[in-house]
Amino acid sequence: MKQLTVIKIGGNVIDNSEKLHQFLVDFTALPGDKILIHGGGKIATELGTSLGIEPKLVDGRRITDIETLRVVTMVYGGLINKNMVAQLQARGCNAIGLSGADGNVIKAVKRPVKEIDFGFVGDLDEHSVSVTTLDSLLKSNLIPVLCAITHDGDSQLLNTNADTIASAVAVAMSSVYETRLVYCFEKKGVLRDVEDETSLVAEIRSEDFVRLQTEGIVSGGMIPKLHNAFEAIRQGVKAVYIGKADELPQIDTQGFGTRLID
Amino acid sequence: MKQLTVIKIGGNVIDNSEKLHQFLVDFTALPGDKILIHGGGKIATELGTSLGIEPKLVDGRRITDIETLRVVTMVYGGLINKNMVAQLQARGCNAIGLSGADGNVIKAVKRPVKEIDFGFVGDLDEHSVSVTTLDSLLKSNLIPVLCAITHDGDSQLLNTNADTIASAVAVAMSSVYETRLVYCFEKKGVLRDVEDETSLVAEIRSEDFVRLQTEGIVSGGMIPKLHNAFEAIRQGVKAVYIGKADELPQIDTQGFGTRLID
Repeated sequence: MKQLTVIKIGGNVIDNSEKLHQFLVDFTALPGDKILIHGGGKIATELGTSLGIEPKLVDGRRITDIETLRVVTMVYGGLINKNMVAQLQARGCNAIGLSGADGNVIKAVKRPVKEIDFGFVGDLDEHSVSVTTLDSLLKSNLIPVLCAITHDGDSQLLNTNADTIASAVAVAMSSVYETRLVYCFEKKGVLRDVEDETSLVAEIRSEDFVRLQTEGIVSGGMIPKLHNAFEAIRQGVKAVYIGKADELPQIDTQGFGTRLID
Repeated sequence: MKQLTVIKIGGNVIDNSEKLHQFLVDFTALPGDKILIHGGGKIATELGTSLGIEPKLVDGRRITDIETLRVVTMVYGGLINKNMVAQLQARGCNAIGLSGADGNVIKAVKRPVKEIDFGFVGDLDEHSVSVTTLDSLLKSNLIPVLCAITHDGDSQLLNTNADTIASAVAVAMSSVYETRLVYCFEKKGVLRDVEDETSLVAEIRSEDFVRLQTEGIVSGGMIPKLHNAFEAIRQGVKAVYIGKADELPQIDTQGFGTRLID
């Protein structure tokens, strides 16, 4: 089985042009088939503010109304995605920027209204990812660069969490590739002491996950992150890595961040 | 040789949601391989105005400064392109939205500064279009939908005339497809009397072009349009059509607008 690396980068890299530059160099250098998924960063919020669109929050959760959807479609699908692709092309990486609507690669369902109406937000299921289309792009030597916009198949674009897209893509592609999923975030990985970057936990096996929670080494926002990672592994992903973007070049030598395996 | 239809639609269709809806239905119904190129419309100007970016004109020519480039990248590459693709997908057309940077499909050169500095505007040459990538997308049953943003291969996005992209794509694809190029604009086609929509000139041969100019039937802005069309034909395009978007379904039966042939 061919190998595939699915990488998600977050806003902290996108918002910093030097970090982004370095990341795109490292991404280009990474051998083998790969797919990049990017989040949004501060640009969408700034553009919204310039246009007088206030960020809408209900119970601390962000709401995507129709104006916000327009803004994220412009910023994620246009500004960030096209500039990132142009930069990758300049470095010799044959990137192709996509929303979920393009080639129907990611089809989502508008989140049902329960206590909160999240607006134009898309949820994914096991049929969301078009493995055939992503595989045919990879076979044409194109590197898909996905933004966090999907569609419902009935003309509606939907704002969708980039972590969730990355995980769904990795799980779906596991049917035809030996797939690893890499999350780049602010920290070096899971730390025994959150203040101490040298206290990295290099590897976590699924059987250790409950114990690490009991010991308090995994806590707070890291719990759902790791829960989703182990869920992806349960569904066929070979390994999930969580670490810092600038350490990506080490992934095949010294290792990268925290490696989660079955 | 397989047949290919390259269609360019302008702002008058994009700005009118009913016209756009109908056009996308008709585009979907058109048999065979096809590529869509879309211009911008008023939305980019409106967004620019909302952000306090004044349209910049020198001698009546539009200048693309860095702020304007950001706006058109967001609007053409993001908002318009992704919504158009989502609508096509909903109608069963497997569209994939692209800028020139994506898959390096259209590489341009920043227009050299002479009397006027046009800013971030891209000019095309005979090597601009990646026939291989467009062909491989078509062979994967994907329908390319190109916006009027290209890149220079060195990270810089460039604003590029959509008519010029359409013509360059049609010429380049003529090496592997029997290609026709269709421009959808406001009028029914070339009219003997510009006030009379029934006075359509159904066909113009290259040998008649000079005579029609002398007789004043082709004048003003129509002269460069037809000049470029005949240039495309000279370079291998089978036929060029100029007509009204809502008459597209007639193209293979009663004909569409004015048909230009060698």
